[in-house]
Amino acid sequence: MNRFEPNLRIPGPTSLPDAVREAGARQMVNHRGPEFAILQNRVIDRLKTFYKTQNDVLILTAAGTGGLEAAVVNFLSPGDKVLSVTVGAFGDRFAKIAATYGADVTKVASEWGRAADAVKVRETLEAAGPWKAVLLTQNETSTAITNRIAELAATVKAVAPDALIIVDAISGLGAVPFETDAWDLDVVVSGSQKAWMVAPGLCFVSVSPRAWEAAAVAKMPKFYFDLAAHKTSAEAGQTPWTPAVAVMFQLDVALELMEQETLPEIWKRHAAVGAAVRAGLTTLGLKLLADPDYASDTVTGAWIPKDLDWKTFNGKLRKLGLVVAGGQGALKGKIFRIGHLGHVTVPAILSAMAVLEQALIELDEPVKPGAAVEAAQVAALQSLGLAK
Amino acid sequence: MNRFEPNLRIPGPTSLPDAVREAGARQMVNHRGPEFAILQNRVIDRLKTFYKTQNDVLILTAAGTGGLEAAVVNFLSPGDKVLSVTVGAFGDRFAKIAATYGADVTKVASEWGRAADAVKVRETLEAAGPWKAVLLTQNETSTAITNRIAELAATVKAVAPDALIIVDAISGLGAVPFETDAWDLDVVVSGSQKAWMVAPGLCFVSVSPRAWEAAAVAKMPKFYFDLAAHKTSAEAGQTPWTPAVAVMFQLDVALELMEQETLPEIWKRHAAVGAAVRAGLTTLGLKLLADPDYASDTVTGAWIPKDLDWKTFNGKLRKLGLVVAGGQGALKGKIFRIGHLGHVTVPAILSAMAVLEQALIELDEPVKPGAAVEAAQVAALQSLGLAK
Repeated sequence: MNRFEPNLRIPGPTSLPDAVREAGARQMVNHRGPEFAILQNRVIDRLKTFYKTQNDVLILTAAGTGGLEAAVVNFLSPGDKVLSVTVGAFGDRFAKIAATYGADVTKVASEWGRAADAVKVRETLEAAGPWKAVLLTQNETSTAITNRIAELAATVKAVAPDALIIVDAISGLGAVPFETDAWDLDVVVSGSQKAWMVAPGLCFVSVSPRAWEAAAVAKMPKFYFDLAAHKTSAEAGQTPWTPAVAVMFQLDVALELMEQETLPEIWKRHAAVGAAVRAGLTTLGLKLLADPDYASDTVTGAWIPKDLDWKTFNGKLRKLGLVVAGGQGALKGKIFRIGHLGHVTVPAILSAMAVLEQALIELDEPVKPGAAVEAAQVAALQSLGLAK
Repeated sequence: MNRFEPNLRIPGPTSLPDAVREAGARQMVNHRGPEFAILQNRVIDRLKTFYKTQNDVLILTAAGTGGLEAAVVNFLSPGDKVLSVTVGAFGDRFAKIAATYGADVTKVASEWGRAADAVKVRETLEAAGPWKAVLLTQNETSTAITNRIAELAATVKAVAPDALIIVDAISGLGAVPFETDAWDLDVVVSGSQKAWMVAPGLCFVSVSPRAWEAAAVAKMPKFYFDLAAHKTSAEAGQTPWTPAVAVMFQLDVALELMEQETLPEIWKRHAAVGAAVRAGLTTLGLKLLADPDYASDTVTGAWIPKDLDWKTFNGKLRKLGLVVAGGQGALKGKIFRIGHLGHVTVPAILSAMAVLEQALIELDEPVKPGAAVEAAQVAALQSLGLAK
């Protein structure tokens, strides 16, 4: 490993701004005392702004997967018909959670690298029913695809208006356009270590009034992830179980930074880095995994050149100071993924492109020095409206 | 609130040593990379030393309550007969988790402030069966009682040898004597924010070979808390879901500090602070909640003087820089609790006694200046063998 600080370009945990990092070193407070209540109330208010919702937003001490479990077990009963719209490993995991707790799950799966197909969703919903819920993934980290949730949600509303719409927005919310209320989404999950620029340990779940009605009669067992208990505690400025206090300190600081930048600027920045990564990788001669019409602005996956293996390629990148993620499931060893969400700038992406250029040149791949860096910069400036 | 750093004397989160705090500010690493694997392997090895076990110890991103849920849902099936030996709010919670997931729970409850009664446990076990598991609490935070787990476990072994022994050791392990293997305990839960001197967000579960056999056929649903998935991942130096990386950094540092102090010295220190708190509070004229034969060396509860209410009393303490915990359940508003576990020294306890003296004097209680401080100091030195 490079002895300097590496460029951490995985799709979460994302690197932390200094002010966020440092908040993780604060001394503990009483999680049942007034300091924590003020902190949590402020954090929840700000989360609601970024969620664009008036719904309750609850904070759980868990990884994002815990949030997905909460989004299932609080609203469903064993035997409920659930449509899982999956486009990759995390969509499959979401379906598996529902099946584990006894839901009757039907899957509409896309080939990895393709987005969810609204027509197939409509046809499947029409072919059976009644549907209790539809599970959607906003941004599929394993395949670098961003689904069009507005369109999918409208499809569900049109065909199965009683179905709850439950969305995994873990790796997209706070980075790319998302509208909880305008799209009428019932349950939306996100996680601290993604766009929020905070250490892992907290996840967030928004709950619509309609979802609370479903929760009142849902029969799947739950205790740690009982959202009604979280709501009752939140109203008293607390959490039912001891929260990850240090991560809350970080979240408070990160949300302030996000507020200062403003959400439209955050979205613009992610669009620019997404365009930069795709242009750079393409210029390097690497084939991208995702359908370009649905390419994610928070993560990009590309095929490793055929004559290289993952270990050699990744070893070289690490030595030069770039940390990327490998492929998941059937794509393990075949693709690599670059995270570009949260604490990320165009210069940080150009730096990643520089390492990729050098690594591929050292590995005797046909790469023109400087070309990928240039292409990434041009694409970013075009995205920002600063170049033709 | 006092403008200086308060003396945080709640039974978790405990205050953090500076080196531990600062580790929470480190930059993120790839949780699927070699740095994290090395860290987790080192942490697990050290946890095993403090657990005094050769069993697997798994690390989960959750509050201690999540660890209790894992300790139930991985080993039991709906309908299993479970004996819950409860002496307070956390024992009741443990029983409630088992019942939530469908276990057939029988409770042996002690009056709050009394320890578990081994005779009653034996009689209840003998009166019915077969028992799949017995749930024990080592240290009940709500009532400041430490049960004698060795004696209770031996009772279970004698009468119901096939029953799994599942122990909530969240607020005692790492502070007071505990022997996972010597006492033949199948599943033992602890949490980062207690004796371990780390921010909340991680909990630990040890699993015996016998418990793994039970897990292989256990039918309660689980996903996030699936310990078999955690074991598989741990063998690859990973966790199945993104771990609370910053809390892991802190845990690594805290375990090194604990190793330097050595476990016998840690136990001695806790015995001394426990004795100091009890002597000080008694000298203040406050009645202790717990049966003195089973008084906890990590937390002490005392009745608030009858002519004072919790809000006035606690408000005064906070203003003078002392943060204590209130009562739980039926004891809410009636008792207060002082935490003395993890990052705690005799001088920190004397400082707490000084605040209590002043607060009670300001509230016109009959308190002799300096007496409680002196009594606490004498008791600590006696406990350490330094005074007659």
